[in-house]
Amino acid sequence: MIIDCHGHFTTAPKALEDWRNRQVASLAGGDAPKASELRIGDDELREAIEKNQLAKMDERGSDLTIFSPRASFMAHHIGGFETSATWSAICNELIHRVATLFPDRFIGAAMLPQSPGVDPKTCIPELEKCVQEYGFVAINLNPDPSGGHWTSPPLSDRHWYPIYEKMVEHGIPAMVHVSTSCNPCFHTTGAHYLNADTTAFMQFLTSGLFRDFPTLKFVIPHGGGAVPYHWGRFRGLAQELKKPLLSEHVLKNVFFDTCVYHQPGIDLLAKVIPVENILFASEMIGAVRGIDPESGHHYDDTKRYIDASTILSGADRRAIYEGNARRVYPRLDRALKAKGL
Amino acid sequence: MIIDCHGHFTTAPKALEDWRNRQVASLAGGDAPKASELRIGDDELREAIEKNQLAKMDERGSDLTIFSPRASFMAHHIGGFETSATWSAICNELIHRVATLFPDRFIGAAMLPQSPGVDPKTCIPELEKCVQEYGFVAINLNPDPSGGHWTSPPLSDRHWYPIYEKMVEHGIPAMVHVSTSCNPCFHTTGAHYLNADTTAFMQFLTSGLFRDFPTLKFVIPHGGGAVPYHWGRFRGLAQELKKPLLSEHVLKNVFFDTCVYHQPGIDLLAKVIPVENILFASEMIGAVRGIDPESGHHYDDTKRYIDASTILSGADRRAIYEGNARRVYPRLDRALKAKGL
Repeated sequence: MIIDCHGHFTTAPKALEDWRNRQVASLAGGDAPKASELRIGDDELREAIEKNQLAKMDERGSDLTIFSPRASFMAHHIGGFETSATWSAICNELIHRVATLFPDRFIGAAMLPQSPGVDPKTCIPELEKCVQEYGFVAINLNPDPSGGHWTSPPLSDRHWYPIYEKMVEHGIPAMVHVSTSCNPCFHTTGAHYLNADTTAFMQFLTSGLFRDFPTLKFVIPHGGGAVPYHWGRFRGLAQELKKPLLSEHVLKNVFFDTCVYHQPGIDLLAKVIPVENILFASEMIGAVRGIDPESGHHYDDTKRYIDASTILSGADRRAIYEGNARRVYPRLDRALKAKGL
Repeated sequence: MIIDCHGHFTTAPKALEDWRNRQVASLAGGDAPKASELRIGDDELREAIEKNQLAKMDERGSDLTIFSPRASFMAHHIGGFETSATWSAICNELIHRVATLFPDRFIGAAMLPQSPGVDPKTCIPELEKCVQEYGFVAINLNPDPSGGHWTSPPLSDRHWYPIYEKMVEHGIPAMVHVSTSCNPCFHTTGAHYLNADTTAFMQFLTSGLFRDFPTLKFVIPHGGGAVPYHWGRFRGLAQELKKPLLSEHVLKNVFFDTCVYHQPGIDLLAKVIPVENILFASEMIGAVRGIDPESGHHYDDTKRYIDASTILSGADRRAIYEGNARRVYPRLDRALKAKGL
């Protein structure tokens, strides 16, 4: 079984974007649209998935995607808590409907109604609804709800502990995932995403967070940002800071996905990061949709790179494709087992 | 000949730090210390270099270092233009003295008196003094003088053009190098430095800067941040943005150093980035000073990784060690030729 732990609903029917545009426009004055004003039929949803993500999953040979709302559309910096709360509820419900329409192919991960300067514990009702009512197996946690201004405390700060307590209670990991950058310095998918990955890893490394939460689990997407490429630097910095070896200090809690869009990058990842810390993902359909003229295949068809790796054994591949995800996402494992899988 | 294009004076006599502390303290009220109050003798300078950088250069086998003030001490976010102007002048003069004491082993690169919100053209007098009077061959340009708040425009903005005009006029490249992060989200050497490298590359990629300045040259340090590891992502993003191939679009102007502190990282760099775009560097003595228990050698002894590479030919190594630096730093080439080298 091949589980892609990182997919976003980037192909939602246009009515969703129209609704959001009305909501954003209302912030300048006027009535916000009601959630009930958004109408997307099951047929529309089915088509949006079948023609896009599902077609590519079938073509590329992946079975199940851990599916969450479009990351760049979370835009937690827009409006305040109410804005994000309504928007998150809408986006998560759509994910739930997709997972209900295609129960064997998609399982949900929630976006949270984060808002800059607002206590993260305000996200808990939405988080619990998604886990308990919708059967979601993870959350996406944005370490920078300001959208590129980085005004929140580091992820190691007690500020975030209310979320972590719920993650532990419900047995769900968080993917660390920022959203659109509204800082003109940072291109969203070419800089802000990768920077956030590197930043989060270093926040974990410099902290004792996993002493407080020994079972807390984070997936760092986009292959861990700059981290595996600079693994020697991070090992050396941990040593300077008198931290334990990274294998003890962070790798029981931190995992990297395989959203690295060329063979040498995946080869490096597989070489320096222990196999048990690597989870298959493609972020399809995402930031990079084209065909690589050098390979003749889609950049984000990351399964090809893993299959072509000369470093990984068959057992390694099975761990990356399935075993690790079932370990890191225990609710996913339970859901699969309930189906006899 | 082996040229290390990235070394900072991280081992300056303590009097320098004491002077700076007095200057910083004076910002809260009181008289700033005068530059003339800093007294460091030639013997002290010689000892600071001989016991540290020079000893390691001899031990590791590098001949010449392009040497600049300590990056994390630039701290452009502290005080205003006057603060940075006095501090830069002091730091650059020390570099000039080191280069004068060891003319065959060190050649200068300038820090600039940048300050958040201040027009970069205020840096030109210091830049020109360093090039014309001191014989420096490059500058370090901080894309984020705010120290982790990223309040300046992207490097592609006309805001920076006065600096670029002088770089072209004098034939000097800039190393893109941030300083200390005063944003608690970003660890200085583990996140902020690498993020800045990735950010700058993406700013270049999304812009037409090199149409305006076809001969402008930037060195992106720390192996280019996350860029080589995600080379497929960047090629794919350029393609989505309808930009030319990266070889045409940025690689005539952008170069990566080899400050990547493990063998797999250097192997990836050498595999995906054209050899003519790679410049030898170690950033010794810098962020990562320890010995890697996995190799038994210093993490930042990057020459070992280049020598051990099975991808690079002898000609490739010569280009990385010398030829490329002489091309990217034409004033360095001229200085060496004047010595018959």
